[in-house]
Amino acid sequence: MSADELPSWRETSVKQSIVEFVAAVTDPDSPDFIPERDRVAVFDNDGTLWTEQPVYAQLVFALDRAAELGHPTSLEELHAGGMEALLKLLALTHAGITTDEFDAVCRNWLASARHPRFGRPYPATVYQPMVELLGVLDRRGFSCWIFSGGGTDFMRTWTADGYGLPPHRVIGSVGETEFRIGDGGPELVKTAKVGTINDGPQKASSIHRHVGQRPIMAAGNTDGDLAMLQWTAASPYRTLELVVHHTDGDREYAYDRDPILGSGTGQILAAAAEGKWTVIDMAADWATVHPDT
Amino acid sequence: MSADELPSWRETSVKQSIVEFVAAVTDPDSPDFIPERDRVAVFDNDGTLWTEQPVYAQLVFALDRAAELGHPTSLEELHAGGMEALLKLLALTHAGITTDEFDAVCRNWLASARHPRFGRPYPATVYQPMVELLGVLDRRGFSCWIFSGGGTDFMRTWTADGYGLPPHRVIGSVGETEFRIGDGGPELVKTAKVGTINDGPQKASSIHRHVGQRPIMAAGNTDGDLAMLQWTAASPYRTLELVVHHTDGDREYAYDRDPILGSGTGQILAAAAEGKWTVIDMAADWATVHPDT
Repeated sequence: MSADELPSWRETSVKQSIVEFVAAVTDPDSPDFIPERDRVAVFDNDGTLWTEQPVYAQLVFALDRAAELGHPTSLEELHAGGMEALLKLLALTHAGITTDEFDAVCRNWLASARHPRFGRPYPATVYQPMVELLGVLDRRGFSCWIFSGGGTDFMRTWTADGYGLPPHRVIGSVGETEFRIGDGGPELVKTAKVGTINDGPQKASSIHRHVGQRPIMAAGNTDGDLAMLQWTAASPYRTLELVVHHTDGDREYAYDRDPILGSGTGQILAAAAEGKWTVIDMAADWATVHPDT
Repeated sequence: MSADELPSWRETSVKQSIVEFVAAVTDPDSPDFIPERDRVAVFDNDGTLWTEQPVYAQLVFALDRAAELGHPTSLEELHAGGMEALLKLLALTHAGITTDEFDAVCRNWLASARHPRFGRPYPATVYQPMVELLGVLDRRGFSCWIFSGGGTDFMRTWTADGYGLPPHRVIGSVGETEFRIGDGGPELVKTAKVGTINDGPQKASSIHRHVGQRPIMAAGNTDGDLAMLQWTAASPYRTLELVVHHTDGDREYAYDRDPILGSGTGQILAAAAEGKWTVIDMAADWATVHPDT
């Protein structure tokens, strides 16, 4: 691998681990060689591929849309109301609308919304080192997939541009849809019925459902990703597990608990230590965090 | 397209429609040209890609396995017991087992089971003309997907060999799985909880969930496939809808109602007539039905 394919990674042991793993599993003469069809890599999204602080982008979208629909609510009210309040907000802002309409609403919001600290569109808060890694893997015959707690339909409006991933490889939480023949012809209407909350152990089940193969590489950042990394690590092939540790309050955020669901990092960091997984120290290992704009 | 890519199709108007469609959407100079990334084709499985008579292969598998597990039941008892009996049979034969174990059980059964009329393994009851069509589409940059009422895990044990499709492109009904750390490490256990029954309007919703794009081509054989074909036909692109009509009692079966779920063909044939969809008359349009063995 030519070194300049990962220019946003500092020359540390973490970069070395990644480069060595990719070389070993793609070299036909290596004992660790893995055929292309089995090179499945899975990534969490929020906090692993893009910034999730101070509030998930999708939650900001939901709050903005609720206000627009005449039902303003605040983050404080949401916190106080717990899961019931969150589901009510999602029903209001993510349901009763066709998939085509929802796609347009998301794209409009993404075009105008700005991250409160970085002043840039949310899709420009992707992690440049991880985007480079996705590119390296893609060029070496890996199929990269996202398994996120965020909503599938929301993510797919920008992940093709942001990461170069086709929609079928971007899987998150799912609200059910209903097929109907509308005035303009066949359409799918998003409903308030929750199909899958794609977090924790469900990520392993979702990988089985959507990919049907055990990954050989996985990346996450909180305990909600633990099962996904464990499931990957148990592959008969050589595997690589990456944990993004948010240590960089100067350039991004330093935290050990995700902003809304409150998932911690204690379990995944302990498992990483035990399983010799690769922990990315954002402050130390990344030369750049976000792309130049 | 060279004619001998579809040698099992007779030189009829149906073959002509298929050849003309594929040429038009893949020719960069055609007004109907569609870029590769949008060439999504979706197929029903039972009765569309392989024989579903006299009884779905998966149901034979379930009955055989129930007997093996010491709980023999008959097709007659199952009919009499309706959906409740069917779900009980599925819980007995498809749950309480890890995904790896289930995979092995299915492969064992497939290796020994024989179709009662044709005396060949079930995977050898695929329709040779459709296998040729899948190959033509694959070589022209289409991504072909199965959306079947059959079980995802059952199908994936043979569809890679049978059709050349990777597991992620084979989607059927889904039983939920549970992630756990077993004695041998992380595993997924199949549960009796039904996640998705992938028939009728659900097929359109499943396509949205698993592909995230509107297909430009769809093939089915009963009213359970109607929504999938309608959803496809409503694409802004030029599309092709195929209905496999079982008219061939001599070489296969002649029927207008599927064997177990009892879905008819009245609606899909009416929609085909109205929407100018392409109806495949198996007796007239196929030179060969099953592959040579």
